[in-house]
Amino acid sequence: MNETVKVGIVGASGYSGEELVRLLLAHPQVELAAVTSRQYAGQTLAQVFPKFSHHPRAKSIRFTEPNASLLATQVRLVFLALPHGVSAEFAVPLLQQGCQVIDLSADFRLRSADVYKEFYAHDHPAPDLLATAVYGLPEVYRSAIKNAMLIASPGCYPTSILLPILPLLRAGLVKPTGIIADSLSGVSGAGRKVEQEYLFVECNESVRPYAVPKHRHLSEIEQELALAAGAPVTIQFTPHLIPVNRGILTTLYLAPANHFTNANEAAELNEKISACYQAAYASEPFVRLLDAKNLPDTKNVVGTNVIEIAWRLDPRTGRLIVMSAEDNLVKGASGQAVQSMNILCGFPETAGLI
Amino acid sequence: MNETVKVGIVGASGYSGEELVRLLLAHPQVELAAVTSRQYAGQTLAQVFPKFSHHPRAKSIRFTEPNASLLATQVRLVFLALPHGVSAEFAVPLLQQGCQVIDLSADFRLRSADVYKEFYAHDHPAPDLLATAVYGLPEVYRSAIKNAMLIASPGCYPTSILLPILPLLRAGLVKPTGIIADSLSGVSGAGRKVEQEYLFVECNESVRPYAVPKHRHLSEIEQELALAAGAPVTIQFTPHLIPVNRGILTTLYLAPANHFTNANEAAELNEKISACYQAAYASEPFVRLLDAKNLPDTKNVVGTNVIEIAWRLDPRTGRLIVMSAEDNLVKGASGQAVQSMNILCGFPETAGLI
Amino acid sequence: MNETVKVGIVGASGYSGEELVRLLLAHPQVELAAVTSRQYAGQTLAQVFPKFSHHPRAKSIRFTEPNASLLATQVRLVFLALPHGVSAEFAVPLLQQGCQVIDLSADFRLRSADVYKEFYAHDHPAPDLLATAVYGLPEVYRSAIKNAMLIASPGCYPTSILLPILPLLRAGLVKPTGIIADSLSGVSGAGRKVEQEYLFVECNESVRPYAVPKHRHLSEIEQELALAAGAPVTIQFTPHLIPVNRGILTTLYLAPANHFTNANEAAELNEKISACYQAAYASEPFVRLLDAKNLPDTKNVVGTNVIEIAWRLDPRTGRLIVMSAEDNLVKGASGQAVQSMNILCGFPETAGLI
Amino acid sequence: MNETVKVGIVGASGYSGEELVRLLLAHPQVELAAVTSRQYAGQTLAQVFPKFSHHPRAKSIRFTEPNASLLATQVRLVFLALPHGVSAEFAVPLLQQGCQVIDLSADFRLRSADVYKEFYAHDHPAPDLLATAVYGLPEVYRSAIKNAMLIASPGCYPTSILLPILPLLRAGLVKPTGIIADSLSGVSGAGRKVEQEYLFVECNESVRPYAVPKHRHLSEIEQELALAAGAPVTIQFTPHLIPVNRGILTTLYLAPANHFTNANEAAELNEKISACYQAAYASEPFVRLLDAKNLPDTKNVVGTNVIEIAWRLDPRTGRLIVMSAEDNLVKGASGQAVQSMNILCGFPETAGLI
Repeated sequence: MNETVKVGIVGASGYSGEELVRLLLAHPQVELAAVTSRQYAGQTLAQVFPKFSHHPRAKSIRFTEPNASLLATQVRLVFLALPHGVSAEFAVPLLQQGCQVIDLSADFRLRSADVYKEFYAHDHPAPDLLATAVYGLPEVYRSAIKNAMLIASPGCYPTSILLPILPLLRAGLVKPTGIIADSLSGVSGAGRKVEQEYLFVECNESVRPYAVPKHRHLSEIEQELALAAGAPVTIQFTPHLIPVNRGILTTLYLAPANHFTNANEAAELNEKISACYQAAYASEPFVRLLDAKNLPDTKNVVGTNVIEIAWRLDPRTGRLIVMSAEDNLVKGASGQAVQSMNILCGFPETAGLI
Repeated sequence: MNETVKVGIVGASGYSGEELVRLLLAHPQVELAAVTSRQYAGQTLAQVFPKFSHHPRAKSIRFTEPNASLLATQVRLVFLALPHGVSAEFAVPLLQQGCQVIDLSADFRLRSADVYKEFYAHDHPAPDLLATAVYGLPEVYRSAIKNAMLIASPGCYPTSILLPILPLLRAGLVKPTGIIADSLSGVSGAGRKVEQEYLFVECNESVRPYAVPKHRHLSEIEQELALAAGAPVTIQFTPHLIPVNRGILTTLYLAPANHFTNANEAAELNEKISACYQAAYASEPFVRLLDAKNLPDTKNVVGTNVIEIAWRLDPRTGRLIVMSAEDNLVKGASGQAVQSMNILCGFPETAGLI
Repeated sequence: MNETVKVGIVGASGYSGEELVRLLLAHPQVELAAVTSRQYAGQTLAQVFPKFSHHPRAKSIRFTEPNASLLATQVRLVFLALPHGVSAEFAVPLLQQGCQVIDLSADFRLRSADVYKEFYAHDHPAPDLLATAVYGLPEVYRSAIKNAMLIASPGCYPTSILLPILPLLRAGLVKPTGIIADSLSGVSGAGRKVEQEYLFVECNESVRPYAVPKHRHLSEIEQELALAAGAPVTIQFTPHLIPVNRGILTTLYLAPANHFTNANEAAELNEKISACYQAAYASEPFVRLLDAKNLPDTKNVVGTNVIEIAWRLDPRTGRLIVMSAEDNLVKGASGQAVQSMNILCGFPETAGLI
Repeated sequence: MNETVKVGIVGASGYSGEELVRLLLAHPQVELAAVTSRQYAGQTLAQVFPKFSHHPRAKSIRFTEPNASLLATQVRLVFLALPHGVSAEFAVPLLQQGCQVIDLSADFRLRSADVYKEFYAHDHPAPDLLATAVYGLPEVYRSAIKNAMLIASPGCYPTSILLPILPLLRAGLVKPTGIIADSLSGVSGAGRKVEQEYLFVECNESVRPYAVPKHRHLSEIEQELALAAGAPVTIQFTPHLIPVNRGILTTLYLAPANHFTNANEAAELNEKISACYQAAYASEPFVRLLDAKNLPDTKNVVGTNVIEIAWRLDPRTGRLIVMSAEDNLVKGASGQAVQSMNILCGFPETAGLI
């Protein structure tokens, strides 16, 4: 376990890719051996990202044109930080040559090629692989991740929604119907897209919903909720763009399976929920359950792989409100991918992440 | 109608008070004759707020200690921009001396002193006045405002929630049950409170829910929804603090009274909703109904008295999502108060506001 | 003077153009009769800028393809809000057809085509017009503006630098040598350019200098300083990009013509400076001279046509520090252009600007 | 060297203190054994700062009332993160009991008690200690730090100014006269002060100079420049507050000792400057010298102990412009203090900082 594993990143110039670079350069058991970027091919990491240049390796590693065959000879494991639809092209040859692949796009998150087509508006480029891919949510699929060749790392919104709901749904504490997820995301969630709507002046001093009512991430959220519920689940999901660089704050509206109509019943239910969360997450290194005095705040998780979760029962409405906060680029993307890599490679799960 | 009306502001050093100063200095039919502030008594408007000093009157008007008797001799109408519980002290003597009062606090928004006590945790200081106060939402209570002596100007969150829901509820298009309001507010919504949680570093790059699940504004929201529904209404309301100076974005989750299960039914319902909103707001100068291509964005309303409203039907969940955006200090506070004043004084309703 | 003047805007979809739209829609003596934009041709103002749609005319005015001949038949005066080098193409035919032109680009700000070429790296497209253009700084060139056909509205940085220095230089109170201007600009100063460096995530939580040491605006700054000094002037100018939407804060380091070596001499000099500024600006509606207790703050001028100026003598170094704050899109661009139009058309100079 | 050293923090609830907590919890050779805070005494680190609660020790360490005698028995080294004037009270007894002290306040940065009194407006509380304190700028005083008992960690502005100037001044490449430092600081530089001027709404969308022309940090800046120049130095320093959480960007205006009047001379001088910086900093782990294509940007250093430095010669003015960027809370405060601790304790200098 003391040897380092050589890894590569395809598409290292976007925000997720850059965050992978940050995490992998600092990782004690990994050697970042290859980074690719069409835009920056030929330049060193230090030239493209001055902020990494104090790292000894940043001056020697150069971006290359993406080339799956070459990569497969250089590294054991490849992270794909590419747009949806492009990842599959690289995953297929890499897997064929024996590389393990952790894909940060949506290409392998869905079990059904039909659902993929419904939400992503084109045929799935490699439907045969869907059955073998493991959804890289370590708190749920840890044992499957251990032996995976292809890991589909979850989306940022799905992570912020699934981790709070899944234990409650599995325990039957909440109904699988009528779920609402209202999410607020920092602008890095859109990626390093050079489009007018993401200009500073267009985002600063602005708050706005978007993709209402059918955001693509619904597909993987509902898939995973359905697996937990043992039945199809349809939810309401509204993303909003807010002027912060990083962070997702999700507020969930849930219906407890059993009504509570007074303070006593609420207290009783509260204990069940607390016990459920404790059972699920007390020993999880990256889930922070807040107490009755604290609510999640993105500033407490930015830069870390931690997701904060808090909940409140509302005796006036009979609803359970669960709130979560995560860094969309870390627990919502690259940190979670590294967490999966740690499991896959037999490293301590928190290596390079705390 | 060509004469100017003398008005005063009690508590002109908070954010709502400052915004009232801005609007009233520029108002063509008003003379801002008195401003009070314990903190700044003796100083001119120009000294306290350099940004107003290009206005000719800003160098002559001085802040005074608040004194209801004196004010009543100086002005015909007084705006109270004071904390909850303090407004009533000033409203009583001002009204007794014949002044009209527009109160921006919560003191006179509720019809029931009991509900006030439940939500504000102290006895109402002037329960006799509750019956005479008019809730200053011009789009709903225009005719009552016209003859009011005491106007209770609505809260910022309530405005952003009530204007989108009321027409639908009155028309019976949505159910009065299960309503959820998820709101995002800029930091000025907290007032000019010098508390650690509102420091720049604590708010910037941070998003957080607060006051979950029972925010005080629920009391006036539910009161007004109940009046529209003709029956008690209990809603879920979750406010969040986001790092912008101004603006509230509210996302509402509503259940249409009639189910829609396919695209045709959705289109039909959509037309009814559109007709309902057109009937309610097409001629309202400060309500902007967005079309199917646009969603509300706080940056399009900041600094104006306009509220933007858009809606989407979700055939997957059967829900109606309505979204609104307003400037919490203008349509959510001072602009709306000036709008009420315009009605009360017989000015054009948009005077000083466009 | 009660008639309205028809005006047009070429290039109305950038930030300066949008700000012109805002100011001209609200202007009491102007009818905005034409707006052009290649990108938005065919759409109404209300469609492109929902925030203006409460204005009655915003639903009827449509963007058209820019066409100088047509424009000249529709309006008396045209604002050009175009990139450097493009304005001249439109100015020439408009002037030929008798239209007055207020150009917000740098095309006509320099008196020398050679200097233009040095700083803008291409031949001047219409050198013959340079002699007839008036530099649209009303506080300096008011009488020339009155009779101009072609006004070259100053740049945002130049305005923030020239207004504080010119009176001192003309009065011989400061030396024309060794001047340093250190400026901080909000991101809208870059225009609505869809480039990676202006993305929200790249600007937020970032501060950086740029164009060091030879920014293009030096050419017009030094031209105007030289005219005031009666001799060539070379200055140091360092612009920085800071994460605000609007506002320029400039800090100037100047050497008083006469040394001061103690408090008495400093006090004496301070009075001369104060008298000089009072003589220059006491009756200027858009220059706010701050007292010894206040320093400029962009938040006090944003949205207005005001420039704030303060100064401090430093007996330790013998230097005079002068600081200014303005809104780069208003006094630094569109507001100043409207101010020039007011002078040109014989309107009150503050019409539509207060 | 494999043993951990026990350290404590007095005043751990401010921003510098919090940053020390972050760095020391993660430090491989340190045990954070005591944290004090009057405000939070009795609470655990995890309770006060939820964001540290994933760290195993955060749930066991409790804030205590500050007590020098007790601390001296618990730890070998104490960081003082206290206001100016308060640190000395703690330093004296801690030193007497054999503790090493790293003070982040200004109390021990000056060699002269008279200069202290001039700038801090009260008598120095422990003038006898001034001679023994070492100014904790590792790039300059590394060998003295190694054997110090009392380290006065430099201020944030001074670090951003001294590191770029000192090598040039020592090499005689720039004149010690006429130096100007224009600095832009994020709001955390003001500390966690609950004052109106640091509220979110007062800082956001605002830029402003302050403390013009005589900021307290001038005293230590001029002291260190004088030591490098071998003669008294008086500089001009203007700090500005900008709306970012962290980061200082400093722009320095310097006069080269030898004039350069053409491109050849500039190129020659440029090489000398480059060689001077290379000699001083090429092997420094926390100084990043930028090449001719890059300028400093605070976003590239935030969260790290790195200072970025770039320079440009201006043949038009004959000046040298040097620019630096650092994180005011890391290289400007807590990171630099940890760097000093590493030297003092014989740890690798980058331990816990990369």
